[in-house]
Amino acid sequence: MRVDGREKNQLRPVTIETGFVKHPEGSVLITVGETKVICNASIEDRVPPFMRNSGKGWITAEYSMLPRATETRNIRESSKGKISGRTMEIQRLIGRALRAVVDLESIGERTIWIDCDVIQADGGTRTASITGAFIAMATALGKIQDEKKIKKFPIKSYLAATSVGVVKEHGAVLDLNYIEDSSAEVDMNIIMTGEGEFVELQGTGEESTFSYNQLQELLKLGQEGIGELFELQKEALGKLADRI
Amino acid sequence: MRVDGREKNQLRPVTIETGFVKHPEGSVLITVGETKVICNASIEDRVPPFMRNSGKGWITAEYSMLPRATETRNIRESSKGKISGRTMEIQRLIGRALRAVVDLESIGERTIWIDCDVIQADGGTRTASITGAFIAMATALGKIQDEKKIKKFPIKSYLAATSVGVVKEHGAVLDLNYIEDSSAEVDMNIIMTGEGEFVELQGTGEESTFSYNQLQELLKLGQEGIGELFELQKEALGKLADRI
Amino acid sequence: MRVDGREKNQLRPVTIETGFVKHPEGSVLITVGETKVICNASIEDRVPPFMRNSGKGWITAEYSMLPRATETRNIRESSKGKISGRTMEIQRLIGRALRAVVDLESIGERTIWIDCDVIQADGGTRTASITGAFIAMATALGKIQDEKKIKKFPIKSYLAATSVGVVKEHGAVLDLNYIEDSSAEVDMNIIMTGEGEFVELQGTGEESTFSYNQLQELLKLGQEGIGELFELQKEALGKLADRI
Amino acid sequence: MRVDGREKNQLRPVTIETGFVKHPEGSVLITVGETKVICNASIEDRVPPFMRNSGKGWITAEYSMLPRATETRNIRESSKGKISGRTMEIQRLIGRALRAVVDLESIGERTIWIDCDVIQADGGTRTASITGAFIAMATALGKIQDEKKIKKFPIKSYLAATSVGVVKEHGAVLDLNYIEDSSAEVDMNIIMTGEGEFVELQGTGEESTFSYNQLQELLKLGQEGIGELFELQKEALGKLADRI
Amino acid sequence: MRVDGREKNQLRPVTIETGFVKHPEGSVLITVGETKVICNASIEDRVPPFMRNSGKGWITAEYSMLPRATETRNIRESSKGKISGRTMEIQRLIGRALRAVVDLESIGERTIWIDCDVIQADGGTRTASITGAFIAMATALGKIQDEKKIKKFPIKSYLAATSVGVVKEHGAVLDLNYIEDSSAEVDMNIIMTGEGEFVELQGTGEESTFSYNQLQELLKLGQEGIGELFELQKEALGKLADRI
Amino acid sequence: MRVDGREKNQLRPVTIETGFVKHPEGSVLITVGETKVICNASIEDRVPPFMRNSGKGWITAEYSMLPRATETRNIRESSKGKISGRTMEIQRLIGRALRAVVDLESIGERTIWIDCDVIQADGGTRTASITGAFIAMATALGKIQDEKKIKKFPIKSYLAATSVGVVKEHGAVLDLNYIEDSSAEVDMNIIMTGEGEFVELQGTGEESTFSYNQLQELLKLGQEGIGELFELQKEALGKLADRI
Repeated sequence: MRVDGREKNQLRPVTIETGFVKHPEGSVLITVGETKVICNASIEDRVPPFMRNSGKGWITAEYSMLPRATETRNIRESSKGKISGRTMEIQRLIGRALRAVVDLESIGERTIWIDCDVIQADGGTRTASITGAFIAMATALGKIQDEKKIKKFPIKSYLAATSVGVVKEHGAVLDLNYIEDSSAEVDMNIIMTGEGEFVELQGTGEESTFSYNQLQELLKLGQEGIGELFELQKEALGKLADRI
Repeated sequence: MRVDGREKNQLRPVTIETGFVKHPEGSVLITVGETKVICNASIEDRVPPFMRNSGKGWITAEYSMLPRATETRNIRESSKGKISGRTMEIQRLIGRALRAVVDLESIGERTIWIDCDVIQADGGTRTASITGAFIAMATALGKIQDEKKIKKFPIKSYLAATSVGVVKEHGAVLDLNYIEDSSAEVDMNIIMTGEGEFVELQGTGEESTFSYNQLQELLKLGQEGIGELFELQKEALGKLADRI
Repeated sequence: MRVDGREKNQLRPVTIETGFVKHPEGSVLITVGETKVICNASIEDRVPPFMRNSGKGWITAEYSMLPRATETRNIRESSKGKISGRTMEIQRLIGRALRAVVDLESIGERTIWIDCDVIQADGGTRTASITGAFIAMATALGKIQDEKKIKKFPIKSYLAATSVGVVKEHGAVLDLNYIEDSSAEVDMNIIMTGEGEFVELQGTGEESTFSYNQLQELLKLGQEGIGELFELQKEALGKLADRI
Repeated sequence: MRVDGREKNQLRPVTIETGFVKHPEGSVLITVGETKVICNASIEDRVPPFMRNSGKGWITAEYSMLPRATETRNIRESSKGKISGRTMEIQRLIGRALRAVVDLESIGERTIWIDCDVIQADGGTRTASITGAFIAMATALGKIQDEKKIKKFPIKSYLAATSVGVVKEHGAVLDLNYIEDSSAEVDMNIIMTGEGEFVELQGTGEESTFSYNQLQELLKLGQEGIGELFELQKEALGKLADRI
Repeated sequence: MRVDGREKNQLRPVTIETGFVKHPEGSVLITVGETKVICNASIEDRVPPFMRNSGKGWITAEYSMLPRATETRNIRESSKGKISGRTMEIQRLIGRALRAVVDLESIGERTIWIDCDVIQADGGTRTASITGAFIAMATALGKIQDEKKIKKFPIKSYLAATSVGVVKEHGAVLDLNYIEDSSAEVDMNIIMTGEGEFVELQGTGEESTFSYNQLQELLKLGQEGIGELFELQKEALGKLADRI
Repeated sequence: MRVDGREKNQLRPVTIETGFVKHPEGSVLITVGETKVICNASIEDRVPPFMRNSGKGWITAEYSMLPRATETRNIRESSKGKISGRTMEIQRLIGRALRAVVDLESIGERTIWIDCDVIQADGGTRTASITGAFIAMATALGKIQDEKKIKKFPIKSYLAATSVGVVKEHGAVLDLNYIEDSSAEVDMNIIMTGEGEFVELQGTGEESTFSYNQLQELLKLGQEGIGELFELQKEALGKLADRI
């Protein structure tokens, strides 16, 4: 049994609370075990310069951790005056993943800003961010469709993410918490659509490597876990689920 | 009656939830009307260079808003690569205020980091931050006293803050929300100790001025409001209240 | 008697030299005891983006110290690549104060840049900056009125500032020099108009607090001192004084 | 046939020139089709602060493009004053990959700096950088082993990388050039060891997705291509190849 | 005899390879002894804001060194987040020198970007950059003349540069390598036109000084050396030489 | 006759006021025509890291202009967050020049910080800075010699600087003011020692060139002008002049 008593193919408890903060068009608090992320979606009526006059919209994401989301306090990136490579990687990943399931032409020349702010971290913050941001984005798009700003609901498919990895004593496991993640030999993030297609696959040997067979095992665990996340997302969306 | 139905000398509903996030030594979610701030206190076992070998501790604060804490989305200060003048002013104010009620020698060469992160803003974020941060700090200091790291409880007095201001139709009012704050002619932040002494007083005519008599009226409103905040703080502290 | 032989309610000697530097529309060297500040006012024929098409003008201030204005040399903010919190606070204060006594509509879509550069510091640099900047600004506005660029003299009232504070051996005193300021328990900056109204009041207990009675005493000292500054300002303005 | 006449499973011509620049301990010019990267390895006799007294060494990489390595000129990151997210991702990837095949304890408290500077870009710059950097690093480590600074040759296995992707008219192809990469639906970077294990796998749907079967096809192409790269690396290493 | 066996008035071997990189309009690899610089010229169809609507073009240069161009590795300026004073001086010098021999009106509202990237350094990198950049620029201008974008070949004269200096044991010498440069008492960079006029003269005593007579001797050496560089430039230009 | 009525070989009126600001060890206000520069010298009892344990001292300079030293207001470099190339060039030049006439071993492991702050600019600010900084530095070194911190007066020779240039209607002229400088074809800064040796020579054709004969003429003008500056420096130093 794993450090927190889970089976190898068992997700941590996941909750998705919508309407968490009042101002954003979509706002979600997602909890995955002890990991908690506020995911806000804001809609802006213009696109970045490189997209102007394309008739298409854009989706971009920012990710941050409160300084004390972690065991020891981290220095704020605003105090350091620059964003770390890790943050950049994560926010690029979130934006890219969300764009894969949205018909950018249907949203017109608008930008959807996704803000994922981790208030408590215990592993898997980037995958929790993607799973939660999908709901915040869907809520926001539902809202502007209700306001007749867009005609068609632009989301083509569900999107969720989880991590899998190879941990010394247990081999391949699903949804690593911080302790497992710290000691994992292999760490893989999987992002999939409701149709069972991959959007992104990032597997990394941490001063280690992995075989073809291990890869297959990890993919299977991830597919199962993401399947469960889709059920939770459907529930969180309520009536909005019918539009997808 | 005011825009939200309050009397001139009436605070908005205030709640103080302790233990909000798990990692910090002290963690509070303070709600003042629609304003919500996470106040975390972290204890670090060293002081900044200018305090080394002084035998004294230090208290410093950082303040930030989530990009969509407000009606329209603000650019992150980490993306801009620098902290705004407003943020600097506020975090200097929070740190200075807290230091006024703590015996820095009793905490030894430790730094108390206060992080105030506004997740939803509706006016009065800096005064809510101070009122909440006081509880987070007290919790953290209680914790290290329980762990015998310090002998004496180093807090000398309660500390709370509120805003008062002169609003066109109502004259002097207590605890301005965002709408009132935006149109106020005079805006004043008052920070006081449980002994009824002033720690800081910042009154500003916003392209306007105020008379000696108006000042007296504002001070009176503030003193009353802060008196009520002390009651709420006492309750939030529970048993810890006995140490002050 | 105070460290420099003054009475508690006595200002240091103040001189205001106009036309100090040749290029700016208004240029003043103000001396308050050993504190010396060059205050330049520049008029630019456009406003910042957030004011465009408002028909109104804007006043903004920048403050800096020469590295060796102080006892020991400070690193230049241009070398550090960022402006300190203290500098930001001061320059925001100067701008806000000046805007309180100017009819921004009368100056049209112009920006008045105020530059306060401290060449020698001995306490009270921010209040000296405000008192001097008022004269530089008035000179500049007089100049463009003479040039028929504006019709009406847009200054509504005099503006001056001083500091008061509570010093251990003397209690409440007026116009603190650096030695007094360093050891003051309470430090308060008062900015007033010629009509005797407050523009800004910033009182701070430095790891200390102050009572309601002390506050009243400080206000009284400040009002008296500022009254004397208005006389000196009037004299420095010469004929221009008739327009206010 | 592909745009440059290659088969789907055909690499572009690859050359690896060692000793390209005289100062570094290891220096390689790798050419993959029209992509040209200078890979330099420098050995520094100390480690970053977080590794001190660990008895282990560290490997870190930096990646850059000359402004005109590309069709149109890019602004230098030194002029912009910050490194882009893309650059950060790539240099973190290169460092992580190299660390996977080196016994960090055998190199002692030394840092191996890898500098990959792209002088001409035509797709696949990050995978070319890894393949070339491996040779530069091996040369540098061979040099300090010859100088008796380290006892054991610390490289545990070969390391090479290539890209695979799904291109509209051709389906899965190996080693995409810039034109193919620009229009690819799926883009995957594969890094493997001489033992046939994966070090890193990064597959991305570019506003698109990929199925399980497509993934298997891409992996197969990548494995074959990397096998050929190992032959070229062996040749480039000359006698040094015997130590691995 | 000098450290590398040269006479006092002898240049190091110089080679100029055109067409070195494929994308830029002009691309040169210049080798001066062990110093190697890639000089690329890019043509952009617009000018910086301060030149708009002037009808004239602009020439600007950037200079950089690969981190391991030197004996020990230098930190990248992009990592430091700012450009050093030395780099700024050099790139301003290169741009200014090139502008002196080009008729900016003939190139229309275009910018010629010159990028000088030192891949191996052994003294004289700035003068090698100028000599090589001239050829890259001429090639680029020849190309757009061939494309009929400009009517007249806008280069008015040849331009080349070298260094001279006073070295302890040898007195005045031509074209200092790194060892000589490090110990030189006087260091002078001379930039001249094909007409024998000076474009720039920068002589510096390195914690030392130089007399009027030494100056004359240095000028003479420089003039001779630059004469030889003009021959090499002519050859490198091939047919293009006829247009100057 | 020149625009301000001077002869071609005539300096503008020069005044050197010592003891201008009270805190620095040496403080000078130098006036050259309408150009006014405050030159402060500060002595710090340590050297930068690269000089530690060398037994030698260091001299470094910083240069800045007040925003309104010029006809139109310049943005502060502290607001821009970086120092311009022009400023860097000038401050490197000032430091290098002063180091040429000081015996760095005699000052021990101390740093002399030179701050040149231009309060009014009318051409020749860098040469005025050098001429004034020499006096500030000499005063500061005299002071620490009087305090017995150093044994020997470490200045080996006088140091002064001026500009010369070629102006359309007048040919070669001495000490250009801003109007002349703006339209000059050739601009040359000359720095010399009291022994008549050159310390630095920087001649630049501004989109123009100069001949060998023009160079000789400019050198002659510069030598004469600097000779007069030495007389003024001697006078400003008073008794201290005897130590050089």
